[in-house]
Amino acid sequence: FPVGSCIFFSTVVTFHVLHFSAASYTDSSDDETSPRDKAQVNTQGSSDFCVKNIKQAEFGRREIEIAEQDMSALISLRKRAQGEKPLAGAKIVGCTHITAQTAVLIETLVALGAQCRWTACNIYSTQNEVAAALAETGVPVFAWKGESEDDFWWCIDRCVNTEGWQANMILDDGGDLTHWVYKKYPSVFKKVRGIVEESVTGVHRLYQLSKAGKLCVPAMNVNDSVTKQKFDNLYCCRESILDGLKRTTDIMFGGKQVVVCGYGEVGKGCCTALKALGAIVCITEIDPICALQACMDGFRVVKLSEVIRQMDVVITCTGNKNVVTREQLDRMKNGCIVCNMGHSNTEIDVASLRSPELTWERVRSQVDHIIWPDGKRVVLLAEGRLLNLSCSTVPTFVLSITATTQALALIELFNAPEGRYKQDVYLLPKKMDEYVASLHLPNFDAHLTELSDEQAKYMGLNKNGPFKPNYYR
Amino acid sequence: FPVGSCIFFSTVVTFHVLHFSAASYTDSSDDETSPRDKAQVNTQGSSDFCVKNIKQAEFGRREIEIAEQDMSALISLRKRAQGEKPLAGAKIVGCTHITAQTAVLIETLVALGAQCRWTACNIYSTQNEVAAALAETGVPVFAWKGESEDDFWWCIDRCVNTEGWQANMILDDGGDLTHWVYKKYPSVFKKVRGIVEESVTGVHRLYQLSKAGKLCVPAMNVNDSVTKQKFDNLYCCRESILDGLKRTTDIMFGGKQVVVCGYGEVGKGCCTALKALGAIVCITEIDPICALQACMDGFRVVKLSEVIRQMDVVITCTGNKNVVTREQLDRMKNGCIVCNMGHSNTEIDVASLRSPELTWERVRSQVDHIIWPDGKRVVLLAEGRLLNLSCSTVPTFVLSITATTQALALIELFNAPEGRYKQDVYLLPKKMDEYVASLHLPNFDAHLTELSDEQAKYMGLNKNGPFKPNYYR
Amino acid sequence: FPVGSCIFFSTVVTFHVLHFSAASYTDSSDDETSPRDKAQVNTQGSSDFCVKNIKQAEFGRREIEIAEQDMSALISLRKRAQGEKPLAGAKIVGCTHITAQTAVLIETLVALGAQCRWTACNIYSTQNEVAAALAETGVPVFAWKGESEDDFWWCIDRCVNTEGWQANMILDDGGDLTHWVYKKYPSVFKKVRGIVEESVTGVHRLYQLSKAGKLCVPAMNVNDSVTKQKFDNLYCCRESILDGLKRTTDIMFGGKQVVVCGYGEVGKGCCTALKALGAIVCITEIDPICALQACMDGFRVVKLSEVIRQMDVVITCTGNKNVVTREQLDRMKNGCIVCNMGHSNTEIDVASLRSPELTWERVRSQVDHIIWPDGKRVVLLAEGRLLNLSCSTVPTFVLSITATTQALALIELFNAPEGRYKQDVYLLPKKMDEYVASLHLPNFDAHLTELSDEQAKYMGLNKNGPFKPNYYR
Amino acid sequence: FPVGSCIFFSTVVTFHVLHFSAASYTDSSDDETSPRDKAQVNTQGSSDFCVKNIKQAEFGRREIEIAEQDMSALISLRKRAQGEKPLAGAKIVGCTHITAQTAVLIETLVALGAQCRWTACNIYSTQNEVAAALAETGVPVFAWKGESEDDFWWCIDRCVNTEGWQANMILDDGGDLTHWVYKKYPSVFKKVRGIVEESVTGVHRLYQLSKAGKLCVPAMNVNDSVTKQKFDNLYCCRESILDGLKRTTDIMFGGKQVVVCGYGEVGKGCCTALKALGAIVCITEIDPICALQACMDGFRVVKLSEVIRQMDVVITCTGNKNVVTREQLDRMKNGCIVCNMGHSNTEIDVASLRSPELTWERVRSQVDHIIWPDGKRVVLLAEGRLLNLSCSTVPTFVLSITATTQALALIELFNAPEGRYKQDVYLLPKKMDEYVASLHLPNFDAHLTELSDEQAKYMGLNKNGPFKPNYYR
Repeated sequence: FPVGSCIFFSTVVTFHVLHFSAASYTDSSDDETSPRDKAQVNTQGSSDFCVKNIKQAEFGRREIEIAEQDMSALISLRKRAQGEKPLAGAKIVGCTHITAQTAVLIETLVALGAQCRWTACNIYSTQNEVAAALAETGVPVFAWKGESEDDFWWCIDRCVNTEGWQANMILDDGGDLTHWVYKKYPSVFKKVRGIVEESVTGVHRLYQLSKAGKLCVPAMNVNDSVTKQKFDNLYCCRESILDGLKRTTDIMFGGKQVVVCGYGEVGKGCCTALKALGAIVCITEIDPICALQACMDGFRVVKLSEVIRQMDVVITCTGNKNVVTREQLDRMKNGCIVCNMGHSNTEIDVASLRSPELTWERVRSQVDHIIWPDGKRVVLLAEGRLLNLSCSTVPTFVLSITATTQALALIELFNAPEGRYKQDVYLLPKKMDEYVASLHLPNFDAHLTELSDEQAKYMGLNKNGPFKPNYYR
Repeated sequence: FPVGSCIFFSTVVTFHVLHFSAASYTDSSDDETSPRDKAQVNTQGSSDFCVKNIKQAEFGRREIEIAEQDMSALISLRKRAQGEKPLAGAKIVGCTHITAQTAVLIETLVALGAQCRWTACNIYSTQNEVAAALAETGVPVFAWKGESEDDFWWCIDRCVNTEGWQANMILDDGGDLTHWVYKKYPSVFKKVRGIVEESVTGVHRLYQLSKAGKLCVPAMNVNDSVTKQKFDNLYCCRESILDGLKRTTDIMFGGKQVVVCGYGEVGKGCCTALKALGAIVCITEIDPICALQACMDGFRVVKLSEVIRQMDVVITCTGNKNVVTREQLDRMKNGCIVCNMGHSNTEIDVASLRSPELTWERVRSQVDHIIWPDGKRVVLLAEGRLLNLSCSTVPTFVLSITATTQALALIELFNAPEGRYKQDVYLLPKKMDEYVASLHLPNFDAHLTELSDEQAKYMGLNKNGPFKPNYYR
Repeated sequence: FPVGSCIFFSTVVTFHVLHFSAASYTDSSDDETSPRDKAQVNTQGSSDFCVKNIKQAEFGRREIEIAEQDMSALISLRKRAQGEKPLAGAKIVGCTHITAQTAVLIETLVALGAQCRWTACNIYSTQNEVAAALAETGVPVFAWKGESEDDFWWCIDRCVNTEGWQANMILDDGGDLTHWVYKKYPSVFKKVRGIVEESVTGVHRLYQLSKAGKLCVPAMNVNDSVTKQKFDNLYCCRESILDGLKRTTDIMFGGKQVVVCGYGEVGKGCCTALKALGAIVCITEIDPICALQACMDGFRVVKLSEVIRQMDVVITCTGNKNVVTREQLDRMKNGCIVCNMGHSNTEIDVASLRSPELTWERVRSQVDHIIWPDGKRVVLLAEGRLLNLSCSTVPTFVLSITATTQALALIELFNAPEGRYKQDVYLLPKKMDEYVASLHLPNFDAHLTELSDEQAKYMGLNKNGPFKPNYYR
Repeated sequence: FPVGSCIFFSTVVTFHVLHFSAASYTDSSDDETSPRDKAQVNTQGSSDFCVKNIKQAEFGRREIEIAEQDMSALISLRKRAQGEKPLAGAKIVGCTHITAQTAVLIETLVALGAQCRWTACNIYSTQNEVAAALAETGVPVFAWKGESEDDFWWCIDRCVNTEGWQANMILDDGGDLTHWVYKKYPSVFKKVRGIVEESVTGVHRLYQLSKAGKLCVPAMNVNDSVTKQKFDNLYCCRESILDGLKRTTDIMFGGKQVVVCGYGEVGKGCCTALKALGAIVCITEIDPICALQACMDGFRVVKLSEVIRQMDVVITCTGNKNVVTREQLDRMKNGCIVCNMGHSNTEIDVASLRSPELTWERVRSQVDHIIWPDGKRVVLLAEGRLLNLSCSTVPTFVLSITATTQALALIELFNAPEGRYKQDVYLLPKKMDEYVASLHLPNFDAHLTELSDEQAKYMGLNKNGPFKPNYYR
């Protein structure tokens, strides 16, 4: 099995739900021994795990408890379904970012009856304390921050390949675990009852498998669920753009000239927040419909080259490549901040800045000054990688929406009667999307109105939903 | 052919793009003679029209010129296509509201080579001066404000049934014209090359015909085009809710407690504007997804009964019936304003207010005080009909988007090669939606960015679009 | 007594609190007889008044009742003070705009024990129906819409000069009444116990009298009271700019390029509303402090000449003259709208447009197209006079703040112990400003917090206020 | 000389312009030796300074350079005045927070000809690297982070008491330096040409000295300058409230119920930002005028006790004490966040939480969970001290406004002709306020408009200002 660049491309791409809690900042684990070389035992006497330091469990527990407060939908799901244990018998192998928020998901699955084994989908994103806390309670976790490529696959294998236990469900984020099981343990793969996949890349891979006729298991595409699409991009970016800029540069927003490249959901979220704090925002777009929305929303639509000299901040949100070119970087004014909120680290042509005539100066963590021969400095954040991945946090509440969707998808696939799902990739039924949303309303003390019989009939709807047509996105 | 209530229901429903220019206010045409009984001749000597007063043509021309300024997309379409006359040979019979804005559309069709005959889709909405201006330039128009039901069908018939001229295209708003031709002139109907329909009702009728296998002509559903959906509801309501409330009640928005029933596009538009002007807005919803959006956008989600006593203004935007019940009207506080921005006049149970113990007092045009026995007054606007239809104007620019879409749909159907369109109902191709949007960008001096070859390849897109997937709505 | 231009200048300037209720629009009083030549009697048999048509009383009463709903502070003042009749014995002669809102003030004064005689401070602003309603209840009113200059002074004189009744209080708006009494009836003037003046001009005249040592009466400057300053300019303009533009031009705000000249309170109010509705707003300023505020609030600060070619709307709010010059009008683009929200009609150099090469075309009431030889049209609103005076309404609630302040000032001056007020011009004590504000809080169901004894001591404040230092403005 | 509580109260109060750059976070100076016991020499061979570690100079220089980018007003002042050296001969002793921003001020003073000696006004706020960078360039600095009380006075003394150099100007923040010179070196004090004081406390002390007839030197009150008042409170809080909450709690703002106690400038700034990000904000107020503004701005005005159970976040901005009482803390819901943006750490009754039945748990830096016996947790930030002081940064640009004002005040006092300033406390002349503002406009590429002669005359203003009346605040 070739571990090629495409694999690691995926781990970068799926990174977009990463979120650092403050815990990571204070993590000064200067112990240099590899976790693979340590012998560790939790207080229950088990050593079926591999984490950085099992002693950090208590600190990790606190982080999990903090996360629980904003994930009451999952907690309420625990309570509603705890009696019936809808996941009794489920043996779930999971591969996701390992953070306080995913810990809440994992512990929910366990509370609903599942047995879980877990590994990390990214070599940098594991919160070591949280991994320790999970291991301490008996979940076999194989993950630490700063794994090597070899560690990465070793951990995945340790999750899958264990005596006397065979996974029957897969929860994946990026498709690496799925691929590993598919390639290495085809007999296990065939007996899996369902795969739940969150990332763009992983979903893409599943559709390819399906096209090739090789997907012998039903899979649920969580990435394109309504709740994820409607809430993740717009609201996450609205919440995190200010935070990401402030933590890195202490910039004042009032009166700043900002150009946002791309007015999709991500761009809309960024623009809303920046305008509200007093920035003067303009937009670049290739799509006339989005451009017209920008106009109606009060943003000038410009070409980047027309305005680049005046801008204080340049933000890319396009999903495209080379949106900010070297030639444009050359024309920026002194002190201009450049960063990326889109989906890949190719939006800004960072490679072009690694040339001999330019000096790079790392002024703070995630902040580089690129210095031109005439002394002009451009402030590059996170080396062009995703700003909110690198320099801010994603609200726990929004992650709760995704995690709840994942839990429901697992329950649905595990309990679906024979024949409901074929060997294909499915979207979550609209009604379950609405159920996810409804589980989150109590956080806001929001009270839904119920249709009267008469009204339901008038509208041609069932009183309990779904309320949206199937094509609603 | 039976003229039943369902017909007139349609004329009410399709009303939602109505728009009064100031012209209507000053129209004191006290001449009581029916236009059908008058002999009128335009300055070119033609009498092939029937309008209120041909002498108002000059005044109408001014209104058309004012409208042209905000409809530069149509003007630019005129210029781009004028040389090739893509509608040469087209004989279009049209039935729409007759306003300055539709006049700009009609004159564009003529400039592109079409011959047009026109009538009104609503007995109240005709701007007499505009009808006169059109008749003066030679367009046979049959319409005036305040037609009787008999007049309505007489006008339609005069449009269709004329010697030496046979329509080959239909532009309809509500489906009455289409129905008339289908029923009365089946031989004409069969030879029509295409129908363009704008309204919900008309589209509904077309789908029914199609289902019944009786639609022998390709039809274009303009109502569900992207540009109309994305711009009409949200932005029209954002622009008109303040205007509608101010013109009728002179209300101050600052600090007012407002409940908006329904957080779809219409509700979102209303809430944005009201909150921005200092109102304190809460929401009712039946759909958990929309409810969650309202929460994230900063609105409390409540049941109407919980808050009804405190509210200063109640606005319905649901598309449902009896959303505001008599029992809730009974509990409103003195001076509460109630109005409807949704799709039908059934959202507020106005019928329940026509009971002997309540007194109605008409205090201004479109404003009634309903007086309870204890002296409490509720302020009902437009008798529960659409507020922005009755009491404000719709921005010409938004109407321009729809009109441009109609013109393009006509061009497409008239010029499509044999076989591209079957006897079915079609949506505008995504690419033409984007073309409509692009024609409107110069109004804002907006500059689109072009994909480089490399970028287009990376994204898997054609440089000229379409940029949206087909399922985009 | 010379009636010079300075007098009529004042009537224009004081106009800025004018407000048309819808009543005025429907007023088609085509009766051409001068009210001075009519014999009218109210239902009580009195003919001590002169109004357009006493029969309109019922319609006026309805307008007054509507106004009362948003003026509950005055109503509550009536209730609190009705028992003690603090104005018993007061004989008030008043000269203000005669509208539904001032009617509520006048009837409050009567309820508190005062006798009132009233006239209009402006020859155009009287709501005839309201004047009739007041006359019908027994208040001697002398005013109608469309008075001649001679009528104006005749009415004032009829108010003051009546047998068996001598005014001991003056409520003025503009200073014309005060001047008339001072000049014509010096013996009355000397015995007056206090003058309450609302307008900039009137206050200016009082200070001049005072400086010249000729003010033998204490006067209260209501114009500079905190509540008026803090609420009138900012909130009135925020509420009325959108309304004024919509009613005249049906403009869509989304994406419009707007320049606002002047970023004082008026400019701030306009900018807030326009930006919120999607306009792209920039600012001109002469004062660096206001300019810096504009920057921090997210508005570009430009020179008018730099941007004039691109603007869709130009709004003046400076209080200065020739802010928009002929040369700039020459450079505006076709369809540009120009209007004035500032304090005088000199901000736009309208005079320069009355030249032979330009054509004026009145397209609607208050809307002129100025047409350049090349066909370019500039849309001038209200001939450069105040837009919100001419083309929109002022919220009743804001007028209530001023009216309540006037009532309290009258009570204070009438009841003040000998010696508290000398022959000078006074500002309302801070504590009474706060009382005015507190009377308006119930409209919003707002609940004030009370200082504990301990907190009051800590802050060095009295528990009942005043809470603001004296220099607070 | 008694070092009493009042002194340390002052160091707390004056803290409100504190600002942590990211530098502080990475400062792991584990060297435990007191700087007083170290022998350090800079590269020029001087040892006339006392800082934590002179070797951090390079890192500090980078921070200063970053700060310079947002302080271009000072840089431009350097350039404009560098030729004439208006501070040549000035010997300035300074006592302020020692941060990158004050370093830019100090280096500006030096560039204008002054000799400076500097110390810290707060024992915690010094950025050690910045102090090192200043010492390296030859400014005698005596300050480090974590001074003892004894160190604090020792440093002040070392600044003042040096051979062959006698201060003739004082720049103070808090009044401690001024007091020390006044008490310990009365002969130096008498020869000082001017004092510039920034803090509320320091200004208060100066007024007391002046009242007592003991102020033998002219002093400039920078705290009450227009630019500081108009920009510091409103804009600083608007910028920092979101940052402070995010960095400590990673809270999502959308849909959160927030109560802000106090609607002065600080409260207004907080409310604007929170509402814009989707929080649902209500207000408590004691002052009816501010309460009415809150209503008009769209915030419900409530008593804290009415809403305390529903709130997600409670923020105090009153300047008062015990605004949040133990009884209210008892009634908060689980997870409620409580913090203070006002002027003292007494707004929340934190002392009442230090009782045996409650458990404190420090979950992150500056974040405590207070745990009730039933398990309820309240999240207390910064132990009730100023949130933006403790947990976020203040925009450099706003600090630049204050620093520029300080520099101009020093120049004015140092160069004023004999007799212009007496032995009293002065406010900066309005014209200099406007000059400070104008120096900051280029940051925004803002272009001021100039009055024409005719306009200046019409307004009765000088073309170069001042434009504001003296009473403007």
